[in-house]
Amino acid sequence: MSAVSFKVTASSENPTKTVVRARNFEMIIDEPRNLRGTDAGPNPVEYVLGALAGCLNVVGHVVAREMGFQLRGITFELEGDLDPAKFMGKETPSRAGYSEIRVKVKPDCDLNREQLETWLHTIESRCPVSDNISNPTPVKISLG
Amino acid sequence: MSAVSFKVTASSENPTKTVVRARNFEMIIDEPRNLRGTDAGPNPVEYVLGALAGCLNVVGHVVAREMGFQLRGITFELEGDLDPAKFMGKETPSRAGYSEIRVKVKPDCDLNREQLETWLHTIESRCPVSDNISNPTPVKISLG
Repeated sequence: MSAVSFKVTASSENPTKTVVRARNFEMIIDEPRNLRGTDAGPNPVEYVLGALAGCLNVVGHVVAREMGFQLRGITFELEGDLDPAKFMGKETPSRAGYSEIRVKVKPDCDLNREQLETWLHTIESRCPVSDNISNPTPVKISLG
Repeated sequence: MSAVSFKVTASSENPTKTVVRARNFEMIIDEPRNLRGTDAGPNPVEYVLGALAGCLNVVGHVVAREMGFQLRGITFELEGDLDPAKFMGKETPSRAGYSEIRVKVKPDCDLNREQLETWLHTIESRCPVSDNISNPTPVKISLG
């Protein structure tokens, strides 16, 4: 099994608004007005939570199929805590990003609690986005 | 400076399609047809790249303002390599997520190379999404 590459391009429409192109799709990213944005879309850290939900959904269904149970759907609640001090350039011991992300997963199925825990732990270990957030991932940023 | 929380909710529309709600916005996440999806939107790992671009744009402009130069815009190219073996449940030494993410940043401004490098390194250290990908972030997943 060889690695595949995913690519996007993006451009700033203003200091807070970014238009991202992924294949034939667009994502509009912005900051809300209380963060001095133009509020044209979710902000970058909300997109991180969204990506995590989307990935858990896909893996959740793959694992359900493998385990042989009917998964009628999943709902998610995601929340992350972020201290904006470092982002704003202040002296701080805080990190720039989320200090913690919490995810509540509510599957619509007939498994018992033990089976559900097995399902959940399997998903967690195989979810690409969860892996990239939980574990260090090299990000190589260079001038183009 | 105290931490703020960001929240989203999400629900599966089918095994690959997720609708995410962030404040008054929606993100549609799906997989392309060659990954057995219904291709209604970018996939989760493309959203990760998009979130990173959006965050670098915001921080890039904040730092430009602090450094006192005119930044007319930024374009980005982002790419990540991912081995789908672990996601698919195969025995593999590979990790589930991106093994590496590369970002090319092209600012439209009149800085010299040295000033640009200073700008870029400052952005990198203060970008929340870059921090959450580069460094370990606790993700606590539980049954709702």
